[in-house]
Amino acid sequence: MNDTHAKILDCTIRDGGLVNNWDFSVEFVRDLYYSLNAAGVEYMEIGYKNSPKLLKGADAGPWRFLEESFLREVIPEKGNTKLSALVDIGRVDENDILPRSESMLDMIRVACYVKDVDKALDLVSKFHDYGYETTINIMALSNVMEHDLIEAFQQIAKSPVDVVYVVDSFGSLHHRDIEYLVAKFQRHLPDKQLGIHAHNNMQLAFSNTIVAAERGVQYLDSSVFGMGRAAGNCNTELLVSYLKNPKYELRPVLEVIERRMIPLRDQVEWGYIIPYMMTGMLNEHPRVAMALRSGDDKDKYAEFYDKLTSPETALAAKGGE
Amino acid sequence: MNDTHAKILDCTIRDGGLVNNWDFSVEFVRDLYYSLNAAGVEYMEIGYKNSPKLLKGADAGPWRFLEESFLREVIPEKGNTKLSALVDIGRVDENDILPRSESMLDMIRVACYVKDVDKALDLVSKFHDYGYETTINIMALSNVMEHDLIEAFQQIAKSPVDVVYVVDSFGSLHHRDIEYLVAKFQRHLPDKQLGIHAHNNMQLAFSNTIVAAERGVQYLDSSVFGMGRAAGNCNTELLVSYLKNPKYELRPVLEVIERRMIPLRDQVEWGYIIPYMMTGMLNEHPRVAMALRSGDDKDKYAEFYDKLTSPETALAAKGGE
Repeated sequence: MNDTHAKILDCTIRDGGLVNNWDFSVEFVRDLYYSLNAAGVEYMEIGYKNSPKLLKGADAGPWRFLEESFLREVIPEKGNTKLSALVDIGRVDENDILPRSESMLDMIRVACYVKDVDKALDLVSKFHDYGYETTINIMALSNVMEHDLIEAFQQIAKSPVDVVYVVDSFGSLHHRDIEYLVAKFQRHLPDKQLGIHAHNNMQLAFSNTIVAAERGVQYLDSSVFGMGRAAGNCNTELLVSYLKNPKYELRPVLEVIERRMIPLRDQVEWGYIIPYMMTGMLNEHPRVAMALRSGDDKDKYAEFYDKLTSPETALAAKGGE
Repeated sequence: MNDTHAKILDCTIRDGGLVNNWDFSVEFVRDLYYSLNAAGVEYMEIGYKNSPKLLKGADAGPWRFLEESFLREVIPEKGNTKLSALVDIGRVDENDILPRSESMLDMIRVACYVKDVDKALDLVSKFHDYGYETTINIMALSNVMEHDLIEAFQQIAKSPVDVVYVVDSFGSLHHRDIEYLVAKFQRHLPDKQLGIHAHNNMQLAFSNTIVAAERGVQYLDSSVFGMGRAAGNCNTELLVSYLKNPKYELRPVLEVIERRMIPLRDQVEWGYIIPYMMTGMLNEHPRVAMALRSGDDKDKYAEFYDKLTSPETALAAKGGE
């Protein structure tokens, strides 16, 4: 199969930052950028373009509040790999955004829940007018009711947004869900390109992503060695080696895994870890599992399972990309 | 979807033994058996029924050369979970096998390469006449030529074997390959039940297994926490939680992971590890990657990739389940 319609968007820094509180050195991010560029990866999401004024108590690294002058330092010479940043509704100050012609960024992605699609599209329009490529990423799709989604589609169809993402926030979806959602998005949004952002709670992130690509989804989110919140994402190295496009080179990704990701994985954890498998299976936000993993009871799986599934212990919490 | 046609065959001890040279204590195996029984898992493959006389230099644990009196000690009271053992062509002494009515074993599985299907079926017939359920597991399917496979099917169709396995020895197959192979097996062997044995080199073992189940494959191999040679297998806990059959209980599997597999994984390694990803992607036996992982250069991925893909360094080797 020819996969040249597919583009890889590596979100190691942005989603992986949720693991290490964006504690990446400039050298790390620079190395990653040039490695992805050598590998032929089309986009690198280098962080959030949120405003520190709007995010209380934030002491996170600069990747959470990207500034243009800082970005120019990090990447002195841009290659073919485009740069993207994510913004959250209510956390972005539009006055911080330069026109694309003056910016290092090429794409701005807006993450939102279905109830905030109108707010997201308002931002999308502004970024679009500034010249950016835009996406809208509707989180927690597995908990969205049909009529709300249809209504959101109607608004999205009329907007200038370039790409609409299927987001498996909780890593709870399998291939039949993906086929169902992709078909639905295509039916309601025939003029939009689609993307997929998968989580690996049940070891299905890569599989779900290639199933989506096969059905025509163009933008495939991934991260190197799968680094991302909790169970992490679809692995960039798997996509680069799997997709049938002569431009992709696996070797630079292997090098950056060896140089950067293996030492980092010794310090912080992500990936297929049993409590994340459980929240995925139960279609829940991983936050309770993340709390468990940071404590002494981190491997008490059976006890945790009892808590998660007991009707008395209302641990269940929904939300989040 | 109702998945009650599917049966889980847990091969943690047999395939996992390839990781730790079958160094499992009796307590470990007993605990695993009763946990799988409580979880509703249909079969446990408790080792190999090879003969020490026919396997030179073998110093491996008793799980490689199962004896009836030993098995009775390990499992004093059998539950609903049936026991299976694997035999390799040329390594089994038929005189070691008791009739099923006198044995702890319910099923004997024969692993072979396509060129040895005649020898395998000869063994199958004997085991069948002894009253055992039988399977034939054709290894390294990804390297078998069409006409050899068709010829094998003709022999298998005439044999009394109960189950024919699709074996992804190198973890190199993805969902379209599985769909293709399952359809081919079904076309040529309409009267046989099918099984699948997947490896997790590219994080596709679970996904490939559920795709196969969806297409009607009945016997699903897996292992607890994925323990198996190199990248390991489809995870039993994922199947138990995914399959729609009210008999399955996840909790006993979680308990045995917590009690047994987490401490074991600290001592020996298996799973998604980059050199195994590479051999999977290149459709090769993991043995060179296993050798790499046992040495000082275990994380030199780029150098290993160069060796694997260089035409001069003929590292490539084929073979094995």
